[in-house]
Amino acid sequence: MPYRAPVSDFAFLMDHVVGFDQVSATSKYAEATTDVTQAILGEAARMCDEVLAPLQRAGDLHPAVLENGVVRTSPGFDKGYTAIREGGWVSISGDPEYGGMGLPMTITTAVNDMMSGACLALQLNPLMTQGQIEAMEHHASDELKAVYLPKLMTGDWCGTMNLTEPQAGSDVGALRAKAEPNGDGSYAISGQKIYISWGDNDFAENICHLVLARLPDGVPGTKGISLFLVPKYIPDETGKPGRANSLKVVSLEHKMGLHGSPTCVMQYDGATGWLVGPEHGGMAAMFTMMNNARLGVGVQGIGAAEGAYQHALAYAQERKQGRSPIADGTGTIIDHADVRRMLASMKADLFAARAIAMACAVAIDMANATGEAEWQARAAFLTPIAKAFGTETGIRVSELGVQVHGGMGFIEETGAAQYSRDVRVTTIYEGTNGIQSMDLVGRKLMDGGEAACAVLDEVSRQAEAARGAHPVMAEVVWDAAESLREATEWMVTQSDMNDRFAGSVPFLMGFGRVLGAHYHLKAACAEDGEGPRTRLARFYVKRLLPEHAGLLTHATQGAVDLYALSLDDLVA
Amino acid sequence: MPYRAPVSDFAFLMDHVVGFDQVSATSKYAEATTDVTQAILGEAARMCDEVLAPLQRAGDLHPAVLENGVVRTSPGFDKGYTAIREGGWVSISGDPEYGGMGLPMTITTAVNDMMSGACLALQLNPLMTQGQIEAMEHHASDELKAVYLPKLMTGDWCGTMNLTEPQAGSDVGALRAKAEPNGDGSYAISGQKIYISWGDNDFAENICHLVLARLPDGVPGTKGISLFLVPKYIPDETGKPGRANSLKVVSLEHKMGLHGSPTCVMQYDGATGWLVGPEHGGMAAMFTMMNNARLGVGVQGIGAAEGAYQHALAYAQERKQGRSPIADGTGTIIDHADVRRMLASMKADLFAARAIAMACAVAIDMANATGEAEWQARAAFLTPIAKAFGTETGIRVSELGVQVHGGMGFIEETGAAQYSRDVRVTTIYEGTNGIQSMDLVGRKLMDGGEAACAVLDEVSRQAEAARGAHPVMAEVVWDAAESLREATEWMVTQSDMNDRFAGSVPFLMGFGRVLGAHYHLKAACAEDGEGPRTRLARFYVKRLLPEHAGLLTHATQGAVDLYALSLDDLVA
Repeated sequence: MPYRAPVSDFAFLMDHVVGFDQVSATSKYAEATTDVTQAILGEAARMCDEVLAPLQRAGDLHPAVLENGVVRTSPGFDKGYTAIREGGWVSISGDPEYGGMGLPMTITTAVNDMMSGACLALQLNPLMTQGQIEAMEHHASDELKAVYLPKLMTGDWCGTMNLTEPQAGSDVGALRAKAEPNGDGSYAISGQKIYISWGDNDFAENICHLVLARLPDGVPGTKGISLFLVPKYIPDETGKPGRANSLKVVSLEHKMGLHGSPTCVMQYDGATGWLVGPEHGGMAAMFTMMNNARLGVGVQGIGAAEGAYQHALAYAQERKQGRSPIADGTGTIIDHADVRRMLASMKADLFAARAIAMACAVAIDMANATGEAEWQARAAFLTPIAKAFGTETGIRVSELGVQVHGGMGFIEETGAAQYSRDVRVTTIYEGTNGIQSMDLVGRKLMDGGEAACAVLDEVSRQAEAARGAHPVMAEVVWDAAESLREATEWMVTQSDMNDRFAGSVPFLMGFGRVLGAHYHLKAACAEDGEGPRTRLARFYVKRLLPEHAGLLTHATQGAVDLYALSLDDLVA
Repeated sequence: MPYRAPVSDFAFLMDHVVGFDQVSATSKYAEATTDVTQAILGEAARMCDEVLAPLQRAGDLHPAVLENGVVRTSPGFDKGYTAIREGGWVSISGDPEYGGMGLPMTITTAVNDMMSGACLALQLNPLMTQGQIEAMEHHASDELKAVYLPKLMTGDWCGTMNLTEPQAGSDVGALRAKAEPNGDGSYAISGQKIYISWGDNDFAENICHLVLARLPDGVPGTKGISLFLVPKYIPDETGKPGRANSLKVVSLEHKMGLHGSPTCVMQYDGATGWLVGPEHGGMAAMFTMMNNARLGVGVQGIGAAEGAYQHALAYAQERKQGRSPIADGTGTIIDHADVRRMLASMKADLFAARAIAMACAVAIDMANATGEAEWQARAAFLTPIAKAFGTETGIRVSELGVQVHGGMGFIEETGAAQYSRDVRVTTIYEGTNGIQSMDLVGRKLMDGGEAACAVLDEVSRQAEAARGAHPVMAEVVWDAAESLREATEWMVTQSDMNDRFAGSVPFLMGFGRVLGAHYHLKAACAEDGEGPRTRLARFYVKRLLPEHAGLLTHATQGAVDLYALSLDDLVA
């Protein structure tokens, strides 16, 4: 069944829910008028529907393969990538000085969402390049920028991130890759990196690897790590890809999903690279790259959820089964209460997760446009929620998508299972959701909860304002915000970080649940009377939001009971 | 990492939690003494550890294939099946008159759990035969029993269920397969059946299909359906497999998981079959078969969860990552609060789901041994909960298992993803969990909630009794039982079934949550002082049980708001 990018949802969110008007009111993003934005989203949607979506199954059935050291990508992926490149979709938010469109991250986020729903495995490629562009813009020298950024912006060259090593995953500081100065300003990079998404392909002129490695005088741990740009082909004087660098793809991983995306083990044998950022300052640059990618990965979860939802909805409308239990039924399974409940849950969660991601993008744009600390803090606070809540939503919604299909859901030909398998990695990569949650209750509450409370105040204020139009919903949302405020205060006052970490994931999920209700209520208020958005909001507020209470209880139990469960207890 | 069947957990559950002493006190099951039971479980565990568990990956990597009309099973599955057959594990609870051991279903349930954890794909084979044996015992003629039951009991012959057709899944009544009398007491069966688990194999002497079909005078719908036994090879006068019947495997499905289990499309072309049960009485016989299989499938979820848990626990103990956040840490990721939270959640849910399944099995045994209506009602009430809560637990726990592995979880070589893929179908087959929930709030509350209240009274009474030893936990469990009682009363008083169905799945899950707490509390009370079971109970009661409130709120919203979300709203 064909995917249709949900363009009108983005328009609604931007106009009525996440306050995109603030972004287009800044001088930096003055060009992002409603007309321009809609034209861009419409164009991207067309490509997603017509070019990318048809590649989804092919990528799963015919995974990328490594042949004689060269990665051969899935059938049609080259054409799909060409469409992305020619449309300029890699660098919507790139610096215009180097060929980017200079448009808000909010627009990039919407486009990434649509591309993810159409073909997640291929979309991961430009997502990696986007992260590299942002890291280069912030940390690379002008010389490097001049050579690389224009090529990355057009998509002629692709970017990758090389962080993980077999012994160094979430603990990046344990890495062993080495960098030695060559004496000419370049460095010789050696070591092995794993889980390199799109580490190679057969459709880009060049592949640029950002590699974390340690200089000879780098201290152990994260403080001794530097970041290097290591191209597959070293650019010649004219900037064209020249001689091959000393690096290679050793093997591809055999994964649960995302078969169309080659996940590489990379080997660097004295490969030539250039420093990005200061010596031993690699972590800062890496965080820029990952911060961007975190929102991007959250949006992957949302895009996949959209695809899974559309798929299940179409099936539920065509599958006849049993007598209709309602008077004016269609005769298909969508008449059945439990099927409708599943579809409504999918749609309501999807809206909540997407609103959070879009609100996060708006905060990033406002921070970039105004430089104001409040916007920066808000963006930093919302990013781990957008990532973890978005990807959990991807898992839940795609799982329900399988369930709606019944027996057909377990059969691969249907396509429902693929969404579920593909999206599974999103709660893991770019920092597991556990890491996101630790970031939320740790670094993001170091301000004493100021950024959190600013968000909560907004939720409470809006609930107050909604009391006239939607008294029941407003009351429930207001109460939920109060519970969340208490849980947040509990978190802030725990001085032993393990007490926070022992409940960090349920805390993050509870925060997402309540924020989702806030945006649903806002959507309802934007409607004139009782419309579809109000009915969906009511479903969410009455049925899904109540989950927050259990989550917040779980979140605030502290570490004592948890660690009382000893290793022996767990093994017993 | 090797699987170890959790024998001691079953001993503890039987001795202290689910009241197995009642079963062994009946004359019917007097032979099931503690010594006999432990010897049997120990023997089964050994086979699971040594013979079945090593086949788990092979089944995934080398799916069964159809070659020239013959199903070739995965490497080693023939040896694994031989061990199951020779151990007598197919018919632990079979009628001794036909060669079964005549032991309680509680023991079968424990053995099925262990076999599921070791190799789910292969275990599905004897599970199907067990269902067939039970249906034959209750509904077949003495002549059929004499020929077939001894062979099925030994496992020389295998059994399958043939219900589903392309247009008839959950709506069995829509089936089109035909049966015409041959005039000699046999029938000619024609039609196509899909999703036939283990529809063929290359290690059994014969395969016996129980096929639902309609006689020429069968009315439309479920009331016109009859059940037929249709063997692959028609037994000759001596009872040995004789000439091939007119049936064949048309194709095998390409599935998300359970690759080692061939899921067949079967074609019957005037195949010879014999009536099981009365003409047009096929649904009753089918329900016997499915009722057995429902508990069996719930236990599949639990077994898979056990495998996934052991896998993740082993990984968490060997994977070094980052500085240990605790003083006396091991230096591996199990020291991290969030990893420990995930493992504790897995273990606590696993215990809850297993206790429910074992309690259901005890009720079935007591119903069989005493014929008492109360036990029958309890068994009938617990069966859909055991099925749906057990399989949901399988999905949640195996998903957490992937998450504990981080990036390695997405790589198939690790084996974590396989648990997640394999178990996915269990919430779908033998009646989707949606169907289970409709059964629970529909048929199982038709007694005005009597069976439900009997269970709730037990929960409340036990919480009262636990107030001395565990006051905090007892209070929380008691309160939860009261909330559940209110929700149950709400359900019972809804005359429009759609109002019940609109919340049936969250109601069932909430019921399971509270029942799980009851058994955890019972386990804590069985300990002398504060031991591992008390610590696990506390984790469950404080962190996981609170989820029930949100579920029960969701459960009791009724259908109006749900159906207010129109088809247009969902498509919008």
